[in-house]
Amino acid sequence: MKKEKGKAVKIIPLGGLDKIGMNITAVEYENTIIVIDCGISFPEDDMLGIDKVIPDVTYLEQNIDKVKGFVITHGHEDHIGALPYILPKINVPVYATRLTMGLIEHKLQEAKLLKKTRRKIVKQGGYVTLGDFRVEFIKTNHSIAGASSLAIYTPAGVIVHTGDFKVDYTPLFGESIDLQRMGVLGKKGVLAVLSDSTNAMRPGFTPSETKVARTFDMLFSEYRGSRMIVATFASNVDRVQQIINTAHRFGRKVILQGRSMETVIQIAQDLGYVKIPEKTLIQVGEMNRYPDEQLVFITTGSQGESMAALSRMADGTHKKVHIKPGDVIILSSNPIPGNEKAVSRIINELAMRGAEVLFQDTHVSGHACQEEIKLIYSLLKPRYAVPVHGEYRHLTAAADTVMELGMEKDHVFILEAGDVLSLSQKEAKVTGKVPAREIFVDGLGIGDVGNIVIRDRQNLAEHGIVVVTIGLEKGSKQLVSGPDIVSRGFVYVRESEELMRELREVSRRAIEKCRKKNIREWNRIKGEVKDSLSDFLWKKMKRNPVIIPIIMEL
Amino acid sequence: MKKEKGKAVKIIPLGGLDKIGMNITAVEYENTIIVIDCGISFPEDDMLGIDKVIPDVTYLEQNIDKVKGFVITHGHEDHIGALPYILPKINVPVYATRLTMGLIEHKLQEAKLLKKTRRKIVKQGGYVTLGDFRVEFIKTNHSIAGASSLAIYTPAGVIVHTGDFKVDYTPLFGESIDLQRMGVLGKKGVLAVLSDSTNAMRPGFTPSETKVARTFDMLFSEYRGSRMIVATFASNVDRVQQIINTAHRFGRKVILQGRSMETVIQIAQDLGYVKIPEKTLIQVGEMNRYPDEQLVFITTGSQGESMAALSRMADGTHKKVHIKPGDVIILSSNPIPGNEKAVSRIINELAMRGAEVLFQDTHVSGHACQEEIKLIYSLLKPRYAVPVHGEYRHLTAAADTVMELGMEKDHVFILEAGDVLSLSQKEAKVTGKVPAREIFVDGLGIGDVGNIVIRDRQNLAEHGIVVVTIGLEKGSKQLVSGPDIVSRGFVYVRESEELMRELREVSRRAIEKCRKKNIREWNRIKGEVKDSLSDFLWKKMKRNPVIIPIIMEL
Repeated sequence: MKKEKGKAVKIIPLGGLDKIGMNITAVEYENTIIVIDCGISFPEDDMLGIDKVIPDVTYLEQNIDKVKGFVITHGHEDHIGALPYILPKINVPVYATRLTMGLIEHKLQEAKLLKKTRRKIVKQGGYVTLGDFRVEFIKTNHSIAGASSLAIYTPAGVIVHTGDFKVDYTPLFGESIDLQRMGVLGKKGVLAVLSDSTNAMRPGFTPSETKVARTFDMLFSEYRGSRMIVATFASNVDRVQQIINTAHRFGRKVILQGRSMETVIQIAQDLGYVKIPEKTLIQVGEMNRYPDEQLVFITTGSQGESMAALSRMADGTHKKVHIKPGDVIILSSNPIPGNEKAVSRIINELAMRGAEVLFQDTHVSGHACQEEIKLIYSLLKPRYAVPVHGEYRHLTAAADTVMELGMEKDHVFILEAGDVLSLSQKEAKVTGKVPAREIFVDGLGIGDVGNIVIRDRQNLAEHGIVVVTIGLEKGSKQLVSGPDIVSRGFVYVRESEELMRELREVSRRAIEKCRKKNIREWNRIKGEVKDSLSDFLWKKMKRNPVIIPIIMEL
Repeated sequence: MKKEKGKAVKIIPLGGLDKIGMNITAVEYENTIIVIDCGISFPEDDMLGIDKVIPDVTYLEQNIDKVKGFVITHGHEDHIGALPYILPKINVPVYATRLTMGLIEHKLQEAKLLKKTRRKIVKQGGYVTLGDFRVEFIKTNHSIAGASSLAIYTPAGVIVHTGDFKVDYTPLFGESIDLQRMGVLGKKGVLAVLSDSTNAMRPGFTPSETKVARTFDMLFSEYRGSRMIVATFASNVDRVQQIINTAHRFGRKVILQGRSMETVIQIAQDLGYVKIPEKTLIQVGEMNRYPDEQLVFITTGSQGESMAALSRMADGTHKKVHIKPGDVIILSSNPIPGNEKAVSRIINELAMRGAEVLFQDTHVSGHACQEEIKLIYSLLKPRYAVPVHGEYRHLTAAADTVMELGMEKDHVFILEAGDVLSLSQKEAKVTGKVPAREIFVDGLGIGDVGNIVIRDRQNLAEHGIVVVTIGLEKGSKQLVSGPDIVSRGFVYVRESEELMRELREVSRRAIEKCRKKNIREWNRIKGEVKDSLSDFLWKKMKRNPVIIPIIMEL
């Protein structure tokens, strides 16, 4: 029995399931653990005040001696963003391709972790040995250079993690995905594939990035006379390169706007992943030297983010760029679910300033659709399939797609974060569960805001707060000061004097009641005041503010 | 000059522009004002705790003697929902077609306003005379029966308000839109058209409701063996009728779920607008008498609304209906912008319970696309065009569509709420501005929550609240009690004892500083405590909770 157990390799996703974001998966075999990616996710709407969500690495901490390193598929936030939070706890080397490492290093520098972190750049096609594993980085296509699939050679068999990928036969820059290598691996035998499910609900193929190139050509040609502003993700390095190339061809100067846009493109340029023709890039301060029709801005904010450059242009708070009639704005992205309204708001604001807003056909996804998923599985032909990188509906769609290829249902695993999937040539099953909460980052605080605090924030957000202050005589518990009422987010106090008077009266009666009943415990007195106010407000106004009674003993 | 002025008719939208919702437009000529529709809008994401938004009718109150009545185009919330709030202030008769009036009467009954409100049912093709105006109700197509365009005959000319409309040549129930009447009106001469812009960004025609019928037939045929749950809007009476018909044809019993679904369909059935074959409708309590394959639920919650029946089924809190593997759920609606994430969440939850969720091709819009807008304008050929019912981007798209027909730019008006557009055969221009704020409804409170309260709620939502209580001696201003700290939504207090100690210490030092500087005004002492805490928390945690210092004089 023990020998059997020793032969299984464990796949332990600590995030990236049930949601898109916070990708991190441990692979374990006896005394070796490696961790694939270490990303953040952005908060859901109801996680009030939360800035980022990072994974729970308790299991890695408990097994710190086994952990050999982080292997990173590519440089997007949902794959690298949590490293600055996790590395202080799990201080092991980080392995990545050059651009990915450049983006990681920028983060580590900001967090003052650069010197403390061992790092190794791996070439695509190259290997690293980590404990009992060897890890091969295989070239894929995505929306950023250096994106890799990982082949992990374990004593129990080969596991392939696709990373975020699409199949682009005609990428604008660099090579196509290394399908041949996938074929070779498949022929030798693959135990399991962990595959990107983001677009698994979409039939067909994701179009090539060259499709976008043609649209840009057309638009630059059509709007020759206008100032142009193109919004896209800073992390979509290939897209930015493409816009720069088109701008250059049409004789326009390029101005980058938004901190992340400037940072990411600077790093990519320094490492040779973005090539900018000489004198094409100018600073925003130089824009007045050129006529409108010789300018194109490439800006952040395509998702309607309220602090991004495009949003500030739209609401008129951008210090340098003032939108005017005739400006043409291209949204080179699709709204991520949840951002539709924010994007609409920006479109309306830009339109009100007289700009023309275009948002068709200047974006293609960086993720594989159903036919591409079929292709990868047909090349790798693994024994087991584990769809990752998606909400439940995406994972099931990926599972259905794989089963269309003839894989049996009990060879396809839809996991939850924390599940321990044990795999061997003989069998595969979920054999355990490790901690995999979501840890909230709020300002500099990590994990000090949990569900109770969030629920309080939701209550405060709904109807505000009423604080009632009461001074009671120590012995008799008679009222000697107050009740005084202070509120925030409840009603406009200046126009609610009568209501405030009533609230004081209700509090006074509650205290009187306690005195008559000889209730002397502070908590019971507080409870009585709170309940009386709460009942009164619900009956009168159908509202439920948070109520805090404060009693001072005098 | 005075005579000239008398000849103009004024169009005064009090809502329904810059947003979809809260439709209400006054039409005024000398001593006559009529009001078209009186709807609510639902709150934006940042309007925390707000239940509904209703229009500002200050202008109507100021001119109450002129106001002759409300004329209502159809029975949807964004056209009738504010009547219970506005009628107590503007108590004039309400005119509507039969089903619309049935839905209005239900609202008035709940608000105990039924007896106080004069009401008159108007037939499609019929007229009412209101002061100097005559108003004709013209049959249109929309997603609810009784939807009408209004032709308003004023001494200055005929104004046509399309209401919400589409052109459905083959509606499932009732007649097609009365295009002939539009043609007759156009031949005689129309001064201005106010037209539905909801779908003005979409080219082509909105498909007929019969398209949906074919899809339902196909799905009922394909999933013969499964229990079915169809989610749609309660207000989409035609759709509900259609599902009932299909269910009946396939030998299924129908169970309605959700309060608004039951209410609206009951009213529509009572008035003969929904026809349910005998013994087809059953109560949820009877469902166990029938096998799964003989049941279909029609439920609210297609927008992911957290309190609706579908949401309760999805999260397992529905008392009677428990989702199980094999159930088929059809979302017969598209997510309204802003609801995409909530809808995704429900789809994931339903899928996790093993249900199959279908959401393709079982919905068509109730609003006109570009070609339909062109058709209506080509029939009516008005002098002036006023796109309404849309965000700014929809209104401009509608304007562009009308201008494609050859209408000159200065004959097309994109208005804001509160604009007074004065129209005569000679000229048209915006001649004034009346109040047109958004009034917030929170619980039973109307208008007592404004921007200051909302901003406080946003701050509370972000980082919670810290209350510091301090007892000072009356004369010396020396600390005799506290400082005590109470917080909500800030940090988890039990795990933050050290932080709480620091906050008390910071407060103590601030008070000591005031005493040394001989600062004796309470407000300045409070300010000092607040600023010290605020600085400390920002430096330490990068957080900005609301801080309330409370000082008691002892």
